[in-house]
Amino acid sequence: MNFKMIGYLTAKIMLIGAAMLVPPLIVSFIYHDGCHIPFLITIAVFLLLSIPGFIKPKKTHMFAKDGLMIVVLAWIVFSAVGALPFYLSREIPSYIDCLFETVSGFTTTGSSILTEVEHISKSLLFWRSFTHWIGGMGVLVFAMAIFSGKDAKTTHIMRAEMPGPTLGKLASKWQFSVRILYGMYAFLTFVEFIMLLFGGMNVFDSLVHSFGTAGTGGFSVKNISIGYYKSPYIQYTIAVFMMLFGINFNIYYLLLVKKFQKVKANSELKTYLTIIVVATVVIMLNIYKIYNGFEMALRQAFFQVASTVTTTGYATANFDLWPQLSRTIIFILMFVGGCAGSTGGGLKVLRVSVLVKSALSAVRKSVSPKRVLTIKNDGRTIDGNEVEGVVTYFVCYVVFMFASLIVLSLDSIDLETALTAVVTTINNIGPGLGKMIGPAGNFHDMSVLSKIVLSIDMLAGRLELYPVLMLFMPEIWKR
Amino acid sequence: MNFKMIGYLTAKIMLIGAAMLVPPLIVSFIYHDGCHIPFLITIAVFLLLSIPGFIKPKKTHMFAKDGLMIVVLAWIVFSAVGALPFYLSREIPSYIDCLFETVSGFTTTGSSILTEVEHISKSLLFWRSFTHWIGGMGVLVFAMAIFSGKDAKTTHIMRAEMPGPTLGKLASKWQFSVRILYGMYAFLTFVEFIMLLFGGMNVFDSLVHSFGTAGTGGFSVKNISIGYYKSPYIQYTIAVFMMLFGINFNIYYLLLVKKFQKVKANSELKTYLTIIVVATVVIMLNIYKIYNGFEMALRQAFFQVASTVTTTGYATANFDLWPQLSRTIIFILMFVGGCAGSTGGGLKVLRVSVLVKSALSAVRKSVSPKRVLTIKNDGRTIDGNEVEGVVTYFVCYVVFMFASLIVLSLDSIDLETALTAVVTTINNIGPGLGKMIGPAGNFHDMSVLSKIVLSIDMLAGRLELYPVLMLFMPEIWKR
Repeated sequence: MNFKMIGYLTAKIMLIGAAMLVPPLIVSFIYHDGCHIPFLITIAVFLLLSIPGFIKPKKTHMFAKDGLMIVVLAWIVFSAVGALPFYLSREIPSYIDCLFETVSGFTTTGSSILTEVEHISKSLLFWRSFTHWIGGMGVLVFAMAIFSGKDAKTTHIMRAEMPGPTLGKLASKWQFSVRILYGMYAFLTFVEFIMLLFGGMNVFDSLVHSFGTAGTGGFSVKNISIGYYKSPYIQYTIAVFMMLFGINFNIYYLLLVKKFQKVKANSELKTYLTIIVVATVVIMLNIYKIYNGFEMALRQAFFQVASTVTTTGYATANFDLWPQLSRTIIFILMFVGGCAGSTGGGLKVLRVSVLVKSALSAVRKSVSPKRVLTIKNDGRTIDGNEVEGVVTYFVCYVVFMFASLIVLSLDSIDLETALTAVVTTINNIGPGLGKMIGPAGNFHDMSVLSKIVLSIDMLAGRLELYPVLMLFMPEIWKR
Repeated sequence: MNFKMIGYLTAKIMLIGAAMLVPPLIVSFIYHDGCHIPFLITIAVFLLLSIPGFIKPKKTHMFAKDGLMIVVLAWIVFSAVGALPFYLSREIPSYIDCLFETVSGFTTTGSSILTEVEHISKSLLFWRSFTHWIGGMGVLVFAMAIFSGKDAKTTHIMRAEMPGPTLGKLASKWQFSVRILYGMYAFLTFVEFIMLLFGGMNVFDSLVHSFGTAGTGGFSVKNISIGYYKSPYIQYTIAVFMMLFGINFNIYYLLLVKKFQKVKANSELKTYLTIIVVATVVIMLNIYKIYNGFEMALRQAFFQVASTVTTTGYATANFDLWPQLSRTIIFILMFVGGCAGSTGGGLKVLRVSVLVKSALSAVRKSVSPKRVLTIKNDGRTIDGNEVEGVVTYFVCYVVFMFASLIVLSLDSIDLETALTAVVTTINNIGPGLGKMIGPAGNFHDMSVLSKIVLSIDMLAGRLELYPVLMLFMPEIWKR
């Protein structure tokens, strides 16, 4: 481990932290909500932490593990310091709650400990949703694009940071790719913002909800989430944008350069849309009786399906009260997640389809042991190592979930709540099932230990497990 | 598919079915319970079905899929016909319930639809427990050992039928192995029977409970299972024997031929015992307050842990009412199962340890991408194909569980009940969690569809998925 280099680079990234807090500071001044002091102190802390970033160490050589360590460290420090405004303003009294909320923000989870979100100051609510937007495409990819783009070393960091099983290559030069990605991300966010304004949502609400959608986060500024806005136009707009942000950003690039054939041939996109359509139709038929009329049932089903599969976590209905079939489908959708290369969390559609294909292939192989079977995607054969990678990732994921489940059970909460708490956080969704953490509840009453475990789960989910799990390996701490 | 050969061999196996019903027939005569007619009719049905087994087809060539088909077919017919005594005696009015109970018996699951087991006739109870004993080591291995041991073709069948990821080779000639296995199996059952008699249990109860333990089944003749027998001696005896029947039978063979070093070096055995000890201690500490004194807590913890990990499913306490930590541990133990080559179901300890090792190895690989990592067992490196086999098996298992869960949710039962119903049946355990199917409940009130799905799950679990999943592949039905 090159600890000096890790410290140096992590410190450099802290400047981004300071910069991130300028927008909420401005919001605080606009609304005169008295939160400017906490924001200024937090900016000062980030600046102080960035000082070691000005002294470049002699040995600059880094291994993959150093890159992973920078990623984890940066996320932890960002969350720990980013939690300060909530704490210093005394609007969230317990620091562990502030930390949970900030981790949930940066990891784009959207699970909240707030029982009364509408009582919180505007600038803090802005900051909370802004963390989603920053977290969405990865703080560090952003940082790398600005600072040390010249170094090839940074690919390790990018690899750990970018969501999805494959690192989509948009253009030959990755720094250029990052700029295209950010441009498209900002543009889509802006379009949603404008469309929500047209629907009659006020400027502040439109902005924070656009942040929450873009990052597939899910923090709302209303206690009952998007259910507060009765307008079908608003609900459909957000549902459609959630769906759009769950799509691989490469698709938008392909559309931009007019490669429509490639878009049409993309099997992950097809699977993703099929999952949404099938789940929406089944749930709609299942909840039809509860709602008045076809349109209402369709809207509720579509919104909750889009919200869950993209791992956003907004809600227009308390799906915890839906019939069991719908609840189970929501539960299973929690694992799926968005497309690779989107801002969505979860296993990702690509991984899920590789998993299902390898399961089918295993059955076929048992039938004809001598046949050589290959797994294809987009007409291309996926090589054995890639399949193995996906499959072992899944095993890791399950083992990690079970370990978290055991710790959570110390809290004496029921199995459904404990299980869905783990599933919703590791997949960066937001709400779980059951009265406590369902769409109408929150994580406030969980124990400190549970909140810590769930924070680790959120981080592990967002960073695709390995960088976080690495910390639990004794050998990593040896010099 | 060589349908003629499949029919011929399956029909031959039906003779075993007829033979199996002789002991319960005798029991019926002893107790004069009036069930001899149903048993005689069932024997007649088995004999009728065996007629095609006397006409050998011309083409005897078989592929792996033909072997798998014989296995599935034989299990289905055995269950369908084996259910007749319950139905014809009118003691279980619904045929689907009879079928569920018989599948549960043969697959050594032990999930029951009976609300009042103590009202059922002795000979039927005997038959019900006897199916556990027959199912334990595999009806078909037994059949093959008697009939067509000369054919090399039968290894396909044996491979599908033997529980566990590896086909343990006891001796060079497999027919000889089967005899050793059956000898040890019968001997251990007999020892338990004698020990239970010594504890004051009557002959009938001792016999049926020995059958249930040996097959790791779990059907009891008492409504509250082993909780009926207050004697700590009886409870400990059954707990220890459950543990013994969850051990790979190769271990007993090694003890028999005095290869103690090999036994000592067996890592699966060590893991298995470690899991039992750790789970027992944690649960004991967790339930200590509920019970009077240390011994009682230890006994309850040990019994339930041994019962769950070996997938037997007997109970001395209603663990559904235990604190959540203990419930979660029981839930996780449900997946583990016994050792490979034992009568236990579940994933098997060997698979679980390969899964955990490959998860750890994936994390290590992310830290040092260039390192070549191998997974070892008993000091021997497991080759990549074997690891892949275990890992894809696991993926199949999870995909299949989720599919079952969706169908079960149509029943409007809660997620915990639906999930543990699937987990307990696919792992051939018996009781689940929740009031309905917990140790104090039963599967009586489930819908017909759920009972069919759970029966398929039991069968799939017992036959290690592939033979059953194969039936859902369209290509298998093409000639």
